[in-house]
Amino acid sequence: MTPEEFRQHGHELIDWIADYIDGVGDRPVVADLQPGDVRARLPEHPPSSPEPFADVLADVDEIVVPGLTHWQHPDFFAWFPSNTTYPSILGELMAAGLGINAMAWVTSPAATELETLMLDWMQELLALPERFRSTSEHGGGVIQGTASESSLIAMLAARWRVTGGVVNTDGDTTRLVGYCTAQAHSSIEKGFRIAGIGTDRMRVVPHDDQFAMRPDALAELVAADVAAGLTPFIVVTTHGTTSSMAFDPTPEVAEICRAHDIWLHVDAAMSGIAALAPEHRWVNAGLDAADSYCTNPHKWMGINFDCNLFWTADRAALIGALSVLPPYLQSAAAGTGAAIDYRDWGIPLGRRFRALKLWFALRTDGVGPVQDMIREHVAITQELAALVEADDRFEIVAPHPLNLLCIARTGDTVEATNAATDALIDAAHAAGAGLFTRTVLDGRSVMRISIGSRTTTRDHVLAMWAHLSRLA
Amino acid sequence: MTPEEFRQHGHELIDWIADYIDGVGDRPVVADLQPGDVRARLPEHPPSSPEPFADVLADVDEIVVPGLTHWQHPDFFAWFPSNTTYPSILGELMAAGLGINAMAWVTSPAATELETLMLDWMQELLALPERFRSTSEHGGGVIQGTASESSLIAMLAARWRVTGGVVNTDGDTTRLVGYCTAQAHSSIEKGFRIAGIGTDRMRVVPHDDQFAMRPDALAELVAADVAAGLTPFIVVTTHGTTSSMAFDPTPEVAEICRAHDIWLHVDAAMSGIAALAPEHRWVNAGLDAADSYCTNPHKWMGINFDCNLFWTADRAALIGALSVLPPYLQSAAAGTGAAIDYRDWGIPLGRRFRALKLWFALRTDGVGPVQDMIREHVAITQELAALVEADDRFEIVAPHPLNLLCIARTGDTVEATNAATDALIDAAHAAGAGLFTRTVLDGRSVMRISIGSRTTTRDHVLAMWAHLSRLA
Repeated sequence: MTPEEFRQHGHELIDWIADYIDGVGDRPVVADLQPGDVRARLPEHPPSSPEPFADVLADVDEIVVPGLTHWQHPDFFAWFPSNTTYPSILGELMAAGLGINAMAWVTSPAATELETLMLDWMQELLALPERFRSTSEHGGGVIQGTASESSLIAMLAARWRVTGGVVNTDGDTTRLVGYCTAQAHSSIEKGFRIAGIGTDRMRVVPHDDQFAMRPDALAELVAADVAAGLTPFIVVTTHGTTSSMAFDPTPEVAEICRAHDIWLHVDAAMSGIAALAPEHRWVNAGLDAADSYCTNPHKWMGINFDCNLFWTADRAALIGALSVLPPYLQSAAAGTGAAIDYRDWGIPLGRRFRALKLWFALRTDGVGPVQDMIREHVAITQELAALVEADDRFEIVAPHPLNLLCIARTGDTVEATNAATDALIDAAHAAGAGLFTRTVLDGRSVMRISIGSRTTTRDHVLAMWAHLSRLA
Repeated sequence: MTPEEFRQHGHELIDWIADYIDGVGDRPVVADLQPGDVRARLPEHPPSSPEPFADVLADVDEIVVPGLTHWQHPDFFAWFPSNTTYPSILGELMAAGLGINAMAWVTSPAATELETLMLDWMQELLALPERFRSTSEHGGGVIQGTASESSLIAMLAARWRVTGGVVNTDGDTTRLVGYCTAQAHSSIEKGFRIAGIGTDRMRVVPHDDQFAMRPDALAELVAADVAAGLTPFIVVTTHGTTSSMAFDPTPEVAEICRAHDIWLHVDAAMSGIAALAPEHRWVNAGLDAADSYCTNPHKWMGINFDCNLFWTADRAALIGALSVLPPYLQSAAAGTGAAIDYRDWGIPLGRRFRALKLWFALRTDGVGPVQDMIREHVAITQELAALVEADDRFEIVAPHPLNLLCIARTGDTVEATNAATDALIDAAHAAGAGLFTRTVLDGRSVMRISIGSRTTTRDHVLAMWAHLSRLA
């Protein structure tokens, strides 16, 4: 592709994207396909000679797009929102065009410094504790790809601190124990595996009837482990669990962590962004005592995936866990401690220039549109909750303080309600009422309705509810 | 930003990128800045009201771009190439615009199936063993962000297999030992830390005078560890080490691994792409016996970062190590085993639609231009090597089969030559002769000249050599 062709096809693609987003609601939200259907329509072997870009774009239209699950669709009520806004798309485009690597300060000073600044801007916009700011004595933030990575590096920092760094050399984790509830995200269990802790030493702390961690149960587990000669090293609380958007009581948990010098990581991947709206800053409860925290602008906020923000109040532990410094990665700037080398703040060495998309969005759109969207989604969710509550064929099975509603069918037995709820989800998908996720809460089948797509309005939700109501 | 503004600014940005790439050679390859200089020119706090995109773009021009290290620059001879081609930029743009998540088949079937197909196309184009193909009985491939992640997941798969999966629960790694040379990439050591092995049980296998692993030394270390009751679980060989582009003798290493049932991971992040040119397929030596392999299209091949390709011949071990399946991630398609859920093939849950950029590039440009570029870079490197060899003020300190030349100043003592080499690197940077990386090979200071930028021609290299020659 020549530079001239790039200009031409780039312009075409920009318009193609604008058209795609404009018309996404007219497509089925999810593809009706079996595994292998897409591949069967594509050549099994690479082309032997170059093809026109127009042919590629035609295949995108005819084969790829009809095979997608449309996360930007207004009837997308599944998993979690994954919004993209126009300026964030442009930020990603510029990052790809510049083709620089943000692994260290010296590999592109502006990429590192803009990233640090964006974390500080977001600390301010979310009203997070000052101790997470890069300008604080011990804290700082970094962009990660996903909350999975943030959970893992929190464990690695915690593991390093509790062993005085010795774990880097002896790899001995056999006395370490960590804590979360059964409602914590699957990436927490994955992190315990990856870090070589193992799920036997991941204590599943009982939760209450609101699916939130019970501090009394945590205190008991910690005491028992200490008595057994084990070393509690991390507690992960969640602000907005995946299944039901439950909020663990971090202030009470923090007291237990403080008493036993346990690292406290707060995973607010899905719901932390709500703090952009001042009336929802209750989602930050307890962060003053957290050692690390993460939330995802790539979910509700509209910064295109991937953009997870991770802050720690103890950057020395993080860097201690992750810094490996061969000669070819040394630099004078980093040697003085004046520069940040973000490769020491995460798993990968190479890093994209992800700060651009956040910067573009915060400057050209600002947080106003996001605040409006958050408020609207929360209001619609509460309106839907009132409708569900008034209908005795349904019940709401978990608190719904923000934009996720967990519902089930009512019935005489758990078996019957579970069967009816599962049938409803299947029927809703078959009828094209939207895309939903099934989960299980304490043995009960649950239909999750996540209202977070940037394109979802009150009308979409009311139409969806009318659809569900007919199907029930 | 409205859809209309997105179209307008998108077109502007496409042209901006074309101009940037066109003119990158006219800029200084690296910024002359001190830590904090960029941030000092940016507002400390987020804007209180939206700003025009033109203002953002002006700040990019005036503050960000002058603060970058230009990896696409023809005088970029540092670290490793990180090329971006036009179609790969468009692929990244489309991925951002679609805003879908490729974490599982059901979250976008076409994204998963296109990714699988791209790995199979690349297996074919690189002439890798059939057992890595997704259509083979036990193998398959996946796109990772970086080779760091590939090394880590290879260790996790190896750890799982050698413990029969028990490590997932007991987390006991205290008997496991792994092997690599001191020339292996820093991410290998980082992986041993993260996986809870620890560097005490990372055996550094002695290398020969070509900086390649000594199989006899490996055999001795393995025998000693087995005799001590330890469990060798992984050997990592490198095809193209970072410091000197050394090639470990994987065929001989593989015999030792086979005898002791040790996982063999081959890290060809920097040099594996050379196999796109048939005459360089010697870089694949030994892969027939490897359990896993990775190489980076985001380095020499021109697919914009991030795009690391990881293949394994034992996908069951990988999935066994990484699959965690809560109700909200279950799907009928994956339940049958007919669909691939790539979230179980890596660390993160969420995943970008990275297959698009590879597909765009392979279809519109094909591998022809990459083969030409590889051949030209190798030829220029050999021509430069002849010039260096003919100049007794310099010497070549490592084999240079491809596109990296490691040179040092000559002198009476190691101290003198090291000081002269370090001085040469500093002088070259100060004089703007290009950007280089210093490394250390067995105690000797070395100037690495990596010739891999898509924009670098013979003229650039000859001018650079003339510059170095004057400075010496």
